[in-house]
Amino acid sequence: MNIVFVHVHVRPEFVDAFKQATIENASNSAKEEGIARFDVIQQTDDATRFILVEVYKTAEASAAHKETAHYLKWRDTVAEMMAEPRQGVKYSNIFPEDSGW
Amino acid sequence: MNIVFVHVHVRPEFVDAFKQATIENASNSAKEEGIARFDVIQQTDDATRFILVEVYKTAEASAAHKETAHYLKWRDTVAEMMAEPRQGVKYSNIFPEDSGW
Repeated sequence: MNIVFVHVHVRPEFVDAFKQATIENASNSAKEEGIARFDVIQQTDDATRFILVEVYKTAEASAAHKETAHYLKWRDTVAEMMAEPRQGVKYSNIFPEDSGW
Repeated sequence: MNIVFVHVHVRPEFVDAFKQATIENASNSAKEEGIARFDVIQQTDDATRFILVEVYKTAEASAAHKETAHYLKWRDTVAEMMAEPRQGVKYSNIFPEDSGW
């Protein structure tokens, strides 16, 4: 799997709006053929910090996601909400194997 | 869900041994009643960096995990493999809801 953790630091006044926009994006993204999981989590000790856990079946699926209407809407909606530029970090799965995602 | 990301930085000579020990621990942990997922991922641009993505159904499940034989074996086995102390960061799920994990 091609896994990307997108770390997002949101300005405090936008936390609720960010969650709303990001749930909408995630629920649509999770339906994409090339996406195995698209989870969104919030840090317990700092409510302004989120991670989007994006699990792509192929590298092509990652590129295809960035062309979807829901991604483009999310990107533009949350642009003003960021406290700093978001950071993506790439991983591969050690456990479970691809069939477990 | 009670989600913990355990960040592990392994000494380069122990990467393969760490993967072997951690796959064994993860495959047993994933069978625990209180654990929804127990994923292990390796950073693409730095093979010495791993994250254990531990998704517990309850706080009690997290405590119970630390008493299992497979966790205790893993903890002792990997102790000498660490390049620095491992760090745990706690999260809650925004998407999907608990039923989606």
